[in-house]
Amino acid sequence: MKNIPVVLTGYGNVGKAFVRLLAEKKLDGARRFGLDLDLKAVFRRSGGWLAGGCDDAEALAADPAVPLESHPGWVPGLSFEAALPRLAPGVLAEATPSNWRTGEPQLAFLHAALDAGWSIAAASKGALVVDFRGLTEKARARGLALKYSGATAAALPALDVATVALAGSTIERIDGILTGTTNYILSRIEAGESFAGALAEAQAQGIAEPDPSMDIDGWDTACKLLLIANAAAGTSLTLADIKVEGIRGVTVETMRSACEEGRATKLLGRLTIQDGRAVAEVKPVSVELSHPLHGISGTAKGIAFLTDTMGTIALTGGKSDPRGTAAAMLKDIINIYR
Amino acid sequence: MKNIPVVLTGYGNVGKAFVRLLAEKKLDGARRFGLDLDLKAVFRRSGGWLAGGCDDAEALAADPAVPLESHPGWVPGLSFEAALPRLAPGVLAEATPSNWRTGEPQLAFLHAALDAGWSIAAASKGALVVDFRGLTEKARARGLALKYSGATAAALPALDVATVALAGSTIERIDGILTGTTNYILSRIEAGESFAGALAEAQAQGIAEPDPSMDIDGWDTACKLLLIANAAAGTSLTLADIKVEGIRGVTVETMRSACEEGRATKLLGRLTIQDGRAVAEVKPVSVELSHPLHGISGTAKGIAFLTDTMGTIALTGGKSDPRGTAAAMLKDIINIYR
Repeated sequence: MKNIPVVLTGYGNVGKAFVRLLAEKKLDGARRFGLDLDLKAVFRRSGGWLAGGCDDAEALAADPAVPLESHPGWVPGLSFEAALPRLAPGVLAEATPSNWRTGEPQLAFLHAALDAGWSIAAASKGALVVDFRGLTEKARARGLALKYSGATAAALPALDVATVALAGSTIERIDGILTGTTNYILSRIEAGESFAGALAEAQAQGIAEPDPSMDIDGWDTACKLLLIANAAAGTSLTLADIKVEGIRGVTVETMRSACEEGRATKLLGRLTIQDGRAVAEVKPVSVELSHPLHGISGTAKGIAFLTDTMGTIALTGGKSDPRGTAAAMLKDIINIYR
Repeated sequence: MKNIPVVLTGYGNVGKAFVRLLAEKKLDGARRFGLDLDLKAVFRRSGGWLAGGCDDAEALAADPAVPLESHPGWVPGLSFEAALPRLAPGVLAEATPSNWRTGEPQLAFLHAALDAGWSIAAASKGALVVDFRGLTEKARARGLALKYSGATAAALPALDVATVALAGSTIERIDGILTGTTNYILSRIEAGESFAGALAEAQAQGIAEPDPSMDIDGWDTACKLLLIANAAAGTSLTLADIKVEGIRGVTVETMRSACEEGRATKLLGRLTIQDGRAVAEVKPVSVELSHPLHGISGTAKGIAFLTDTMGTIALTGGKSDPRGTAAAMLKDIINIYR
């Protein structure tokens, strides 16, 4: 049995789901993979919680409604960086809400963790989008794992398929429906709603954020495309390299006329590689009936890889809720140490 | 750079495609994975070819129309088992046509290879279906890799997704369209052809074998389901545990009436796990529009995994031709050594 110290940063919905999932899967992880994933600490902006005595991971998981701050192990003001020297290295499970323009606060966490010899399973995109090359090169130089399945499409295993299942083949194109919110809004427009009406409906249902611009202007898709392309196709894209167009201009008429020709309009993140040159863009595309993402409706997501040897391989589904994202983090951790 | 000795058994369409692919991807494998995959020998029933001097893998790949027997390295009557002691251990790429009732000739190859310290990337099912437990336990006990992506669904990466991408989640159901031939015949019946007419058409196009019973009676699907279930869900199924019904009884009427209700009839390999009990069956099922395999038509394949934490993850596409199968073998080899 390998004991793996785990530290979690972020204690929002994904962080809480991760704590619960770790407890739920403890016996299973030991039995199937010989891994004892041992939650040692949780950090949020206002301080940190350190496992100790009976205030352990099980106590934390028992009632997620109890604020972290009420647990005996809570140390106000204790930061991840300050606590690092006291902790034996293991894996950082990173689940703080991130800023995709600055990458903070995770960018600091991730560099500090790598510097201290920790591997990483990240669920948030910001830091990776801002400093993909710096982080991946540091991890590689130190022989540490840096995984981020949960940051690309929650439980949809785009990165595993791209890096493991397609090993040895050359990716010629990637088409991804990577944002559930925009796909939902497009499905509603196809059903006759106006863009504004569909957006309001998505917001009322909690599918779209109060400030929906990251999703509907295509930036969420662009961030995910960047991560998948760089990991899967060996590109070194930054956001500035991606031409990004959102769905504000999509009308009932454009969707209907596509539909009459048997096509469906989707917000695609698309990477095309031709003669070694990569072109990345995000835009609404009317895909044909034969396209493997044609039927992806509602909040569902999907990705298709066109390769030189294996044909087109498409992947659809996967929960987008906090539990699905937490499961992607757990999967990454198991695959680091199994 | 790691030098990996590779031996190939079988020199039919898949074997030839594998030899060509190895040569085509040689530089790429070195650059991306630091692996020098070095084809040392090829065996078929009538003898073996040993690389030597300028009669090397490149010479073999240069013109696959030249019979193996015409190459200077050909040794009539030389068998894999007889040559094994002379070869430094590496990986056996297994691509002989197999008998799924006896598992031979691969069963002997695979045991001999494992006994001699070789890892395995198999493209044929027979031996694994007949002796799954014996082979996997031997490989595990000796710390050797035993992979068989190409044996389950050619380039569709069902095993990678099941074992890597779903790590830590529990599989509750697997639904697979695993035989392109039967899916094609069902598509033609749906279009109005009789079963006999659709079968004759598939045979005329080379999609169905002259003796089509393995496919249309469901045994090909059952063999693949067995391998995927045992690898992915930890079951210990043998063929005797699978209830198998083929597509001979499917009529235009049954398909049409399903179609009118928005359903599509597919030959599914299905594994259901409930309260720890696994039920495996192969039969025609009318799947709903919302089922992720509903739209899989023609010779395409697909598989859907229903899990406890990640929702349903579906995988479709992937070439079924010899090059796609060879690419699956190459992928397995890269993933063993990367």
